[in-house]
Amino acid sequence: MSVTDPKGFRAAGVTAGLKPSGKPDVALVVNDGPSYAAAAVFTLNRCKANPVLWSETAVKDGTVKAVVLNSGGANCYTGPAGFQNTHASAELVAEKLGIGAIDVVVCSTGLIGEQLHTEKLLNGIAESADKLATTGGQDAATAIMTTDTVSKQSTYVGEGWSIGGMAKGAGMLAPSLATMLVVITTDADVDPVTVDLALRAATKQTFDRLDSDGCMSTNDTVLLMASGASGVKPPYDAFAQAVKEVCHGLAQQLMSDAEGSDHDIAIEVVHAASEDDAVEVGRSIARNNLFKCAVFGKDPNWGRILAAVGTTNAAFDPATLDVAFNGVWICKNGEPGESRDKVDLTDREVTVTVDLKAGNETATIWTNDLTHAYVHENSAYST
Amino acid sequence: MSVTDPKGFRAAGVTAGLKPSGKPDVALVVNDGPSYAAAAVFTLNRCKANPVLWSETAVKDGTVKAVVLNSGGANCYTGPAGFQNTHASAELVAEKLGIGAIDVVVCSTGLIGEQLHTEKLLNGIAESADKLATTGGQDAATAIMTTDTVSKQSTYVGEGWSIGGMAKGAGMLAPSLATMLVVITTDADVDPVTVDLALRAATKQTFDRLDSDGCMSTNDTVLLMASGASGVKPPYDAFAQAVKEVCHGLAQQLMSDAEGSDHDIAIEVVHAASEDDAVEVGRSIARNNLFKCAVFGKDPNWGRILAAVGTTNAAFDPATLDVAFNGVWICKNGEPGESRDKVDLTDREVTVTVDLKAGNETATIWTNDLTHAYVHENSAYST
Repeated sequence: MSVTDPKGFRAAGVTAGLKPSGKPDVALVVNDGPSYAAAAVFTLNRCKANPVLWSETAVKDGTVKAVVLNSGGANCYTGPAGFQNTHASAELVAEKLGIGAIDVVVCSTGLIGEQLHTEKLLNGIAESADKLATTGGQDAATAIMTTDTVSKQSTYVGEGWSIGGMAKGAGMLAPSLATMLVVITTDADVDPVTVDLALRAATKQTFDRLDSDGCMSTNDTVLLMASGASGVKPPYDAFAQAVKEVCHGLAQQLMSDAEGSDHDIAIEVVHAASEDDAVEVGRSIARNNLFKCAVFGKDPNWGRILAAVGTTNAAFDPATLDVAFNGVWICKNGEPGESRDKVDLTDREVTVTVDLKAGNETATIWTNDLTHAYVHENSAYST
Repeated sequence: MSVTDPKGFRAAGVTAGLKPSGKPDVALVVNDGPSYAAAAVFTLNRCKANPVLWSETAVKDGTVKAVVLNSGGANCYTGPAGFQNTHASAELVAEKLGIGAIDVVVCSTGLIGEQLHTEKLLNGIAESADKLATTGGQDAATAIMTTDTVSKQSTYVGEGWSIGGMAKGAGMLAPSLATMLVVITTDADVDPVTVDLALRAATKQTFDRLDSDGCMSTNDTVLLMASGASGVKPPYDAFAQAVKEVCHGLAQQLMSDAEGSDHDIAIEVVHAASEDDAVEVGRSIARNNLFKCAVFGKDPNWGRILAAVGTTNAAFDPATLDVAFNGVWICKNGEPGESRDKVDLTDREVTVTVDLKAGNETATIWTNDLTHAYVHENSAYST
């Protein structure tokens, strides 16, 4: 159940001392081949962190041999000195493994606007290279955590091949992508184009539809590396479906561990004129603070949902909208429907369904409620 | 200091019993002429409340003789029965005043999705018509309050003419407009076209730039009525500037009374390539929950500001962005600048300045922080 489950991968996680807490903060995942196909998707934020600027170039040729991640600082808005830290990280990994630095992806996460301690960082990277093991997946998953309360991992086992994944992320969770670092490994024998296609298709319907708090990060990276070590070439559809399953599993774990959340909310938009309409409506609801507070208060406040729907450009008639909480249609045709007393929002899982009655497309956006704990955690994070 | 300060207006506020609290909940403002020029702007939300649907038609000819407002329910998503309540309200005001119903604007505010009690509503309207007085402005301002902790009023005194305004709104404050009901009166002798132009210009730079919590209401209405009773025809520029001042004063009062807020935040975006760019950037920051939590925690977290700027399409170079809190430039050229220890966020008033270095346009968006009290108030509102 880790990134070292698929054949051909080693990993490690160590404590470099970047975090005041003394918890593990540097991880390394290495693809030992025989092939090195890879693809990645990155944050769409225009203010990108230094490791993102580096890694976008590193993955361009479809070959990645290692990824080094640190969780003691985002290395974002740290200027040329920050870029030097990223570059030195890649160079050191390359030197230790006897590969080229341009085949090393770098990820960072943590506070924005503060320089990483170069010496501690590089010592940690050297140590992680020395500790690489085919059983190191769990250590790596632990070392990338920030405000996460649990490590996130997901696997898929095919016929003779497999996929392993790890993720971190507990705040600033919004598209695109959801805010996080994700490393996925597979021993399937697939080429870079297949890896890229499958990864983009998967993230589009999983991480991109997670919108915990509407805040887009500067460091988001999802990397998929294929070693080919199983010798199995799965059909594209099977491979793409498996990648999507692993991404979905990780996305759900991110949502369930979102900072200070009390509820996991699935917003299903049905009978939309287009998938884009469904996503726009779902996202508008997911970002509505009044709706999110209402769910925290176990209040099925459908008026706030319709107010959010009304801010979109999606095709719908306000007089025919239906809204359900957990299957109870408390709004029918834009008016009160079934009794709100039938709705019980005690459980962590909540499903909101909005019927636009405008077509046959559907999409689900996943979000969390807005709670006292969210405010507390995010008003005290950097101080 | 009320809507009855300008000559030619009477007003009243009474308790109709729509609110469980027993507080005043029906207000009436009447223009006694000699002229009846009027204009209004309404919410852009596509899910509009019944009174908005009615009033959009009522103001179309540029003539309004009275506005009746209730604060015991939004009359939104209440279907044909709800529209009947709006229509009956206008009819009753018309009958009592001997005018046409089509010259009566109706506004409602309160909970969405619940029917108003017709008998109580109409009795309250009849009583308010009986109590109309040239000193009734304060009563009217009090009767439109919902979660407001204070009534909001603003005036402007010109040479021989004046403007008076009242507003309600304490949550769901976002464009466009900011969420609220506003009635502005003037005894200037101005025609409907002038009233419309001046009102639209004023709201664009005041209420439309207030974004307390990103949530757009279904009932927003800003109405300006001119009686001509002063006999003074002010020049357009002077009139427009005065209307803007009154709108600005009311908008600032709305922000200061926003539900559960600890800080009033002015986000100034300077050196933008266009005014639209400046507004887009300011709004993106104003809607970033992580930034809003940081201000609540008195934490000048500029990294969250840059992350919000990075989600926009505005013209800027991430490597040259500057950010100041209260005039301390803690981010220069996308890197740490002056010491964050110099920033003191103890006061309620906070100014954030973002220098895009892309042009000569500027805009200010006003918002609030995200606090425990906001979560509490909005998770408990309807239950």
